[in-house]
Amino acid sequence: MKSTVPLLFLLAGSVASFAQSADESAIRQIYNAELTQGQCYPMLEYLTTRIGARLSGSPGAAAAVEWTRHEMDNFADSVRLQPVMVPHWIRGQKEIGRVLNAKKRGVVDFNVCALGMSVGTGPEGVTANVVEVKSFDELKQLGEKKVKGKIVFFNRPMDPTRVNTFEAYGGAVEQRALGPSEAAKYGALAVIVRSMGVNPEDYPHTGGLRYTPNIVKLPAVAISTRHADALSKLLKEEKDLQFYMETHCETLADAPSFNVIGEIKGSEYPDEIIVVGGHLDSWDLAQGAHDDGAGCVQSMEVLRLFKMMGYKPKRTIRAVMFMNEENGLRGGIEYARQAELRKEKHIAAIESDEGGFTPRGFTMTADEKVVSTIKSWKPLLEPYGLTDIGRSGGGADIGPLQPQGVPIIGFLPDSQRYFDYHHTPEDTFDKVSKRELELGAASMAALVYLIDQHGLK
Amino acid sequence: MKSTVPLLFLLAGSVASFAQSADESAIRQIYNAELTQGQCYPMLEYLTTRIGARLSGSPGAAAAVEWTRHEMDNFADSVRLQPVMVPHWIRGQKEIGRVLNAKKRGVVDFNVCALGMSVGTGPEGVTANVVEVKSFDELKQLGEKKVKGKIVFFNRPMDPTRVNTFEAYGGAVEQRALGPSEAAKYGALAVIVRSMGVNPEDYPHTGGLRYTPNIVKLPAVAISTRHADALSKLLKEEKDLQFYMETHCETLADAPSFNVIGEIKGSEYPDEIIVVGGHLDSWDLAQGAHDDGAGCVQSMEVLRLFKMMGYKPKRTIRAVMFMNEENGLRGGIEYARQAELRKEKHIAAIESDEGGFTPRGFTMTADEKVVSTIKSWKPLLEPYGLTDIGRSGGGADIGPLQPQGVPIIGFLPDSQRYFDYHHTPEDTFDKVSKRELELGAASMAALVYLIDQHGLK
Repeated sequence: MKSTVPLLFLLAGSVASFAQSADESAIRQIYNAELTQGQCYPMLEYLTTRIGARLSGSPGAAAAVEWTRHEMDNFADSVRLQPVMVPHWIRGQKEIGRVLNAKKRGVVDFNVCALGMSVGTGPEGVTANVVEVKSFDELKQLGEKKVKGKIVFFNRPMDPTRVNTFEAYGGAVEQRALGPSEAAKYGALAVIVRSMGVNPEDYPHTGGLRYTPNIVKLPAVAISTRHADALSKLLKEEKDLQFYMETHCETLADAPSFNVIGEIKGSEYPDEIIVVGGHLDSWDLAQGAHDDGAGCVQSMEVLRLFKMMGYKPKRTIRAVMFMNEENGLRGGIEYARQAELRKEKHIAAIESDEGGFTPRGFTMTADEKVVSTIKSWKPLLEPYGLTDIGRSGGGADIGPLQPQGVPIIGFLPDSQRYFDYHHTPEDTFDKVSKRELELGAASMAALVYLIDQHGLK
Repeated sequence: MKSTVPLLFLLAGSVASFAQSADESAIRQIYNAELTQGQCYPMLEYLTTRIGARLSGSPGAAAAVEWTRHEMDNFADSVRLQPVMVPHWIRGQKEIGRVLNAKKRGVVDFNVCALGMSVGTGPEGVTANVVEVKSFDELKQLGEKKVKGKIVFFNRPMDPTRVNTFEAYGGAVEQRALGPSEAAKYGALAVIVRSMGVNPEDYPHTGGLRYTPNIVKLPAVAISTRHADALSKLLKEEKDLQFYMETHCETLADAPSFNVIGEIKGSEYPDEIIVVGGHLDSWDLAQGAHDDGAGCVQSMEVLRLFKMMGYKPKRTIRAVMFMNEENGLRGGIEYARQAELRKEKHIAAIESDEGGFTPRGFTMTADEKVVSTIKSWKPLLEPYGLTDIGRSGGGADIGPLQPQGVPIIGFLPDSQRYFDYHHTPEDTFDKVSKRELELGAASMAALVYLIDQHGLK
C-alpha cells in the first residue's frame, strides 16, 4: 500500500483528464487502507475502556486530552493544546426519584438521573405532587394556579415515526433543555423529564439543560422511558401522589481545559485549512463510545491514514478534538474565536458527532455553489454507501465557524441505534462495530481528500 | 390508524391521477403503523429466546413450525403446513481441535466446531500433520504427494475491503462448502476451515458443506478467525505439528418437517400470488436471530400489518416460512415444485435473509421490464433509506421459483455486522435493533403494497 499510493496521488494532481479515475482510485485506496490497517477501533477501545467518562473539568477529560495529544504525536506534523475554560458540573451521589404514597404499592422507586448543569435538591430533597404535561403550551394553559408548588413532569415521547431519529430528538429535546426554566415561570419546585430515548428502556438518559437567565433554577432529573410510562399510569390512577426527588449535583468554578489540535501542513496552500473533528468530552454516566469517542478517533484517523499512505495534502488538514460540547460548547466557541483573531482561512469544517454507525452521507450548511460541488462528488462516494449528500446540517462544535463563512459539514451515519445509547451507561465500546467505525473514518478521509484536491469553490 | 387507512387505499386504486400521492400516503402509513404498533420485535423475542436454535429435524425446528402456525392464525386468512422431508444432521458432543506437540507450549487447544453435514471423526479422532493453503489452486499444486495423510487447513480470509460483506463471503465460502471434497481428491484425512468472519473473533462459525458425490467424505471443522491466525503462525514456526481433531456429528435419516404458509386472499386477482418469506430453520449453535429469525418475523409482519391496517390486497399475499435453507434447501425446492404442479401464478417472491439490519434497498433477478418498474418506485422508497434498488440478487429459498419466470427479490439491509454473528452463538436476540427490524418489515410491506397495487408488468 505504502509504495503504490503516492504515485497515484501524484497522478491525481498532475493530469487533469485522469482526475476522475485518479480520484476513484485514491478513494478506493483510502477505504482499502482503513479496512485492512485501520487503527480507529483500538484507539476507541483505549479512549472508552481505559479512560472512560470524560465530562468537562473531570479527571477523565484531562486524561483524554493528554492521551489524544500523545496519540496524535505519532502521525501529525504538530500537535498543540488550545486552552479554554470550561464549566465544571458534578453529579454527586446517586439520585433518588420516589413515589411515597402509592395506594397499592406504597413506596415506588423510579430510575432517574440529574440533568447535566442542573442544581441539586441537596440532602433534604423536594417532595411535591406531580403534574404531567406534554408541551410548553399545555404547561401555560395550566398556569401558575395548577403548577405552583408542584413537580412538573414533561412526558412527550420522541416521535418513533421519524425515520431519522435526530428529527425525533429535535422534536422532543426542548423539554430537557428548556423545560426547567419554563416550569419555573409558573412556580414549580422541580422537574422530571422523559428520557430522550425512542424505545422502552430502564435506564435514564442524562443531557444538558439551559437555564434561562434571571429565572429560578429548578432541580431537574431525567426518568427512563419505561418508568416515565409507569409514572404516567400511576398518576392517572392516583392524583395526589407525593413524589420525592433527591439530587446532589452542583456546578463548581470553571476549570481549565483544552481543545487538542493535530495538523498536517499543506504542501501547496498551507494557509487553507480543512478541519475534521469530534468532541472529546462525554457525559459522566457513559464511556462516550458513540458520543463522541467515535467522532474523535475517526478524525484522528484521517491524519493517521494520510500519513500511513504517504499522502501529502495540498492544504492544511487539522484534526480538532473539541472540549465541552456536552455542557457549554466552550471549545467550539473558543476555536472559532481564535480562528477569527488569527485571520485563519478555513475552507471547510467536518464534524462526526452522530455516532460510529454505518455511513449514509454528509449534511451541510454552506452556500449553494459549495453544496453543488460536494454533490457533484456523489458518484465517487456512492459505492461506499454515501448516498445521502447535501441535506441541511452540520455539527455543534464547528457551528461557531459558520458566521465566518466556513462551509460546515456533518458526517451522517445511520441513525437508528444512536438514541438507544445516547447519554446513558449503555454508550460503551462493545456497542460499536469495528467495520462501521472504520467505514466512517474512511468516508471522512475520502471527503477531506476531495476537498484537498479540488478546493471548494 | 385503522379508520383512515382503508379510505386512502381505496383512493390509490380508483383515482389514477392521485396514484403517486396515494402511494406516498399509503407507504407513510405502513411505516407509521409499524413504528408505533409493530409486533415483529416481540415475535422475534419469542422465536429466538423461547424456542432458540432450530436446525432441520430438531425439536426446535418442530416447535418453530408450530409456533409460526399459531402466530399466523392471528392475522392470516388461512395457514397451512406444506410437508417436506429434511436432512437431519446432529452435532453430538463438543468438538476438539488440538495441537499435541507444540515445542514451547505442549498441548494447545483451538476453538473449532464441526461444519454442518460433516461426517464425524468418532471417538478415536484424527491425528495428522497440517498443511495450510489459501486456495484450491494451491491445493492442486501441492498435489497428492504433499497432501495425502494430512489435515488440510483452508485459511483464506474474507476480503475486508469489500464494502458489502456478502461479496467478501462469496469470495471465501467455497472453502467451507467444497473444501472437504477438494481435499479428499488428494488423499487428505480431514479439513479445517477458517471461519467465515471478517473480524478477529474467538468463536468459530458453523455452516454447511456439500460433499461431491463419489468422493470420500472427510470430517471438517471451522476454526475461529483468531485461532486460524494463531494456528497459521504456529505452523510457520513448527512444520511437524500433530493436530488432533475429534467430532461426533452424524447425519440421521431424513425427518418430516414443513414449510409454514400464511395467506391473505386477493380481492381482485386471487390467483396472482406475491410471496414474502424467510427461512425458519437456523443453525444449532445460535438463536438464529439475524439468520433468519428476523426475515421470518418481518414476513409474518407484512400480513399482520395489512390486517391491522384494514388493507385488503388485490392479489394474494403469502408469507412463507421455508424449512431447511441452511443444510439442504429442501423447503424452497418443495415450495417451487408444488407451485409448478399446481400451476400457481406467482408474480413476485421477496425474501429477507440478510439480517434484521437497517434497510438499504432491494436486489432482484427478473427481466428488464420488471426491474425498471421496481426502480421507478425509488422516489417512493428513498425517504425510508431504500436507495440501493435494482442490483442483482435474490434469496436462496425463493431461487427455485426463478426457473418458472418468477421475479425474485431480496430485501437488502446494511451488511456490516451480519458476519459478526452469522452461524455463531453470537446470533442472539440482543443483537437486533427494534427499529432496524421494524423498518425492514415496513420496507417489505411497502414493496408488497406497490406490487399488489400496480402489478409487475
